[in-house]
Amino acid sequence: MCPVKKERISNSVIARLPQYYRCVEELYVTNCIRVSSATLSKRLGFTASQIRQDFSHFGEFGLQGYGYNVKKLRYEIREILGINSRNTAILVGCGNLGRALLKNFDFESCGFFLLAAFDPDPTVVGSQVGPVQVLDVRRMERLVEAEKPSMAVLTVPTEHAQAMAEQLRALGVPAIWNFTNCNLSVEGVLVEQVSFADSLLTLSYRLKEKRESEENLFR
Amino acid sequence: MCPVKKERISNSVIARLPQYYRCVEELYVTNCIRVSSATLSKRLGFTASQIRQDFSHFGEFGLQGYGYNVKKLRYEIREILGINSRNTAILVGCGNLGRALLKNFDFESCGFFLLAAFDPDPTVVGSQVGPVQVLDVRRMERLVEAEKPSMAVLTVPTEHAQAMAEQLRALGVPAIWNFTNCNLSVEGVLVEQVSFADSLLTLSYRLKEKRESEENLFR
Repeated sequence: MCPVKKERISNSVIARLPQYYRCVEELYVTNCIRVSSATLSKRLGFTASQIRQDFSHFGEFGLQGYGYNVKKLRYEIREILGINSRNTAILVGCGNLGRALLKNFDFESCGFFLLAAFDPDPTVVGSQVGPVQVLDVRRMERLVEAEKPSMAVLTVPTEHAQAMAEQLRALGVPAIWNFTNCNLSVEGVLVEQVSFADSLLTLSYRLKEKRESEENLFR
Repeated sequence: MCPVKKERISNSVIARLPQYYRCVEELYVTNCIRVSSATLSKRLGFTASQIRQDFSHFGEFGLQGYGYNVKKLRYEIREILGINSRNTAILVGCGNLGRALLKNFDFESCGFFLLAAFDPDPTVVGSQVGPVQVLDVRRMERLVEAEKPSMAVLTVPTEHAQAMAEQLRALGVPAIWNFTNCNLSVEGVLVEQVSFADSLLTLSYRLKEKRESEENLFR
C-alpha cells in the first residue's frame, strides 16, 4: 500500500502552532476539560474560524457546538510539534547567552533533553551551569558520535558560527538552533534562526501605531 | 477635514515586515538598485503574489514588470516599522541575558538608542557592559522621568518581572520588550514577548517533518 501523502502545511499555520500549544497547555494545567474555538479566539487574538480551519489540517479534535477536548487537543498538538518524540540537544558556546539558556530555559517542556554544553575557554570548562557541567569543546566529537543529538544550540560568537556549524554538519547533527547573527549556510542541516531584531522591529511597529492612534485622539 | 482612516494591517502581514526589512537591507548595502517580487520570493520563501499584495497595503513602491526601487522600498519599510523614528530604550536586569544583549545586540539597527541599563546588585553596578555603565536600579525613576524612554527591555529574573513591569507602567514607560517567562499583565503598556520556546517548538516540528520525509525515502 502506498503511504498516504500528507498535506503540506503552510508556514503561517506552523507559526501559530506553538502559540496554540502554549494556550492549550495553560488550560490543561488548570484542569480545563473542554474549550470552544470562541474562547481560544479571545485568548489568542485569532478569529474562531481561523482556529477551526487550522485545527482541521491535523484531523478532528472537536465537535460542532461542543468544543475541543483539552487533553486530546494537547496530546495531538504535542504529536504534531514532535514534543512527544525524544529529542536530545547539545549547547555550544557558554558565554552570557549560552549561560542564560542553560540556567533559565526549560528545554524539557519543549521535548528536548539537554545532553551536554561545550566551550573552549579553560576557565569555564568544568564549571556547573544550570543542569550540566561545561565540557571542553574538544570532547564534542566523541560525544556527538556516541549520543547522536537531535540538534545543537549555537551560542558561540558570531565570527565562529559558520565554522562551528560546518563542524556540526560534518558530525551529522541534523539541526541547529541558531542564536548568532550569522546567516548560516549548511546544506542539509535544518536551521532555526532566533532573531531578536525581528521581535524588536515588531515592537517598533506597534509603538508607532500606538503613538499615531493617541495623536488621532487629540485631533 | 476628517483624518483618513487607515486600513488595519493584519498580524500576519506585520509578522512578515521584519523579514522583508532584513532582506531589503541586505540588497541595499550591496548597492542593488532594483528588485523584482520574483527575486524577493526566492530569497524569502513567500510567493511573489503574496509579496505584491503585502506591499500594496503600504502604497505603491513598484511598477509592473519593472520591479521595486530598493532605496525607496527600504525607506518606506523603515517608515512603516518606525525605524526612522527616534526611539530610546533602557534595559532592566543585567544578568546573563541582559549582558548578552548589551554586548552583542545592535539596538541602533532597529532604530533604538540605548540610554541606560539598571541592576540592583552592588557588585554589578558601576561596571561597563557593552556601550553602557550599569546604574543602580534606584536611579531608574529619575532617569525615566527625565528621558522618557520609548521602551524598557525586561531581563530581570521571572519572579520579579510582574512587579518591575508595574513599576515601569507607573513611570509612564509605554512599551516593554519582555524576555522573561512571565505573562505580564500591565494594562495600557505594549508588551512584545520574546518566546524562545515558540522558536524551539518550530524547530521540533521541522525535525519531525524531516525525519518523516527521510523515512518515506527508504520505504
